[in-house]
Amino acid sequence: MSVNKLFPTVGMVGGGQLSRMTSQAATALGMNFRVLVQSESDSASQVTNNYILGEHTNLDHLRALAQVSDVVTFDHEHVPEVLLRQLVQEGFNLQPSPDALVFAQDKVAMRKKLHQLGVAQPSFAVIETIEQAIDFGKEYGFPFVLKLSRGGYDGKGVWVCHSEKDIEATLGQNFSHTFQWLAEEFVAFSRELASQVARSPQGQMVTYPIVESRQVNGMCSMVIAPAPHLSDADAMSAQQLAMSIADSLNVTGMLAVELFESERGILVNELAMRPHNSGHWSIDGSTTSQFENHLRAVLDLPLGDPSPIARWSVMVNIIGGKYPDMYSAYKHCLARDPGLKVHLYGKEVRQGRKVGHVTVCSDELQDAIRRATHAADYFMGVIEE
Amino acid sequence: MSVNKLFPTVGMVGGGQLSRMTSQAATALGMNFRVLVQSESDSASQVTNNYILGEHTNLDHLRALAQVSDVVTFDHEHVPEVLLRQLVQEGFNLQPSPDALVFAQDKVAMRKKLHQLGVAQPSFAVIETIEQAIDFGKEYGFPFVLKLSRGGYDGKGVWVCHSEKDIEATLGQNFSHTFQWLAEEFVAFSRELASQVARSPQGQMVTYPIVESRQVNGMCSMVIAPAPHLSDADAMSAQQLAMSIADSLNVTGMLAVELFESERGILVNELAMRPHNSGHWSIDGSTTSQFENHLRAVLDLPLGDPSPIARWSVMVNIIGGKYPDMYSAYKHCLARDPGLKVHLYGKEVRQGRKVGHVTVCSDELQDAIRRATHAADYFMGVIEE
Repeated sequence: MSVNKLFPTVGMVGGGQLSRMTSQAATALGMNFRVLVQSESDSASQVTNNYILGEHTNLDHLRALAQVSDVVTFDHEHVPEVLLRQLVQEGFNLQPSPDALVFAQDKVAMRKKLHQLGVAQPSFAVIETIEQAIDFGKEYGFPFVLKLSRGGYDGKGVWVCHSEKDIEATLGQNFSHTFQWLAEEFVAFSRELASQVARSPQGQMVTYPIVESRQVNGMCSMVIAPAPHLSDADAMSAQQLAMSIADSLNVTGMLAVELFESERGILVNELAMRPHNSGHWSIDGSTTSQFENHLRAVLDLPLGDPSPIARWSVMVNIIGGKYPDMYSAYKHCLARDPGLKVHLYGKEVRQGRKVGHVTVCSDELQDAIRRATHAADYFMGVIEE
Repeated sequence: MSVNKLFPTVGMVGGGQLSRMTSQAATALGMNFRVLVQSESDSASQVTNNYILGEHTNLDHLRALAQVSDVVTFDHEHVPEVLLRQLVQEGFNLQPSPDALVFAQDKVAMRKKLHQLGVAQPSFAVIETIEQAIDFGKEYGFPFVLKLSRGGYDGKGVWVCHSEKDIEATLGQNFSHTFQWLAEEFVAFSRELASQVARSPQGQMVTYPIVESRQVNGMCSMVIAPAPHLSDADAMSAQQLAMSIADSLNVTGMLAVELFESERGILVNELAMRPHNSGHWSIDGSTTSQFENHLRAVLDLPLGDPSPIARWSVMVNIIGGKYPDMYSAYKHCLARDPGLKVHLYGKEVRQGRKVGHVTVCSDELQDAIRRATHAADYFMGVIEE
């Protein structure tokens, strides 16, 4: 274990691919980077030095990371709030702070706060009984969406209810007083967009181009940067929306605001306060990646230029399928497209698991979409040539 | 220690900044990367997992790396040839092979081989006595250059002799039969260029744009990609020269050919068979960096597109000076130029030591030179605002 004593240490809770990709940015910046990982085989454990083995639900393990870090930040939202507050009480520097992070951890808190700020969003209600859910369906119509307030990700913890029977099936099986439930109006959106900003504790912000995010089974599949056919006025208003939320919630680090584009305008779907799948394109497609700006932001350093370096960048996720031999696919894809940028997370292939992504930067949107889609499909075994 | 068993392992001898930057490329590609380092505080030790502590002059330590690697490669030329040949004899996969690497390790072998290939280069002679050196000066004129055949780098092991007295001072102090000495004609070059190619064992090659390399005190100071005011014909011929050398010498991985541009045309100065300072710009300025292509080449994978992503990329080295507080400089530089790309190597500042580099990509050459020079000068304490 060795650190560069002249430079600060960033500690990140969680050893997933976001930590893994953040480590590459930390290396360039000359920072020390420590990660709290659950296992030696975690995505980040494979490539980072100085990791700490432990659980993000264990105060002692979190404290062990905090004690060797100038700032603690997160690659997911699953650290219990009470532990975060204890660490702050003990004087540790957490970015984002628990006061901000709660709005990414708790969907009920987020909806209430955005409502209070006057931000356009789907209609919602807190659900404590099956009857309340049925009433919500009567008022806002079916289908509508039931969500766990905490703990969901990538489509998990989200149910679409088409009928009272769906409500009973969902809540009957899953109801618990551990988490709150949230009902949300089903928005007939034309597409999903995302707006990302980096914000530092002193309040400096930079905004990334608005991207279009395409989902399959509730999981991000493709991101197009910038979002095609979006007017300059709408793009600017979506950027201003994210800046205004970041400021109001005192977010530090990266904030991703997931958006619905609908007939009623742009509505906020979700918030994430960390590097986010909608910004992976920025590694290859932007002057400063979201990972570098997250590090710069949580350390209160001046932020980097988020400008795109190509007309179009298209990122497609590689989701685990029936095809475990990524290395053969890899050779094929590298040979077929020398301009393809491949990012693999060192994970074993499992059905439905994000195991990597590819990015193509191009002057032509259709060219970028076609090449990135082909490579990801080949990796996933969806196509064989 | 954890590896992704589905993907190959590249072992690199040496824990310097080249290993450090190669590790970032390995992380993206999902490869396992192991490094033989001399110390836990080496540049690469700070950021790579799974390093092996040991000496590149110790067969057991080299073998320990080779045993856990699918291919062994190098971040410097200093592994004794006899040890490399022993490892090959034992069946390990070394890329480049000792048969190729000797031409980067031994300047006498390199000069003789290039002469045999008919490559334009400075006149030279092997020097075994002071008298032979004096004779060389009489024949080719003063000044001329005396070099140690092996072990030099960054201007070390090189002396310019302006007179017979210089010869006596140089050879009188340093003469030894451990290394051969080489005398070389002093070329009144107009500038230095470098030509880089990646070549895989199956013979695939890609060529990077020809760059201009500016030296201070024998050490690379600035690299401009592509070299300004170079005709297309000259650029292509310099690319073809590097490809021809790579092919003839059976080089694998990255080959850098350092060139003099002179009235007699383009002459070969030095060869390096590894990622090279003249290609650091490619991390930020090219679709596929030299580090990624080195990994792809030594694994015999299809090579990546080396095309530049900006009109101009300018890299300036940060050389250690009297100013040890890199972190304050860092904050200033990040604030002053949000588009600046900073790469620090985690090294303590020492006089004359390469501790990092900066790169600026721009549509305007003078803009890129001005910004990169300013940032590096500020890091080095040469300027204070």
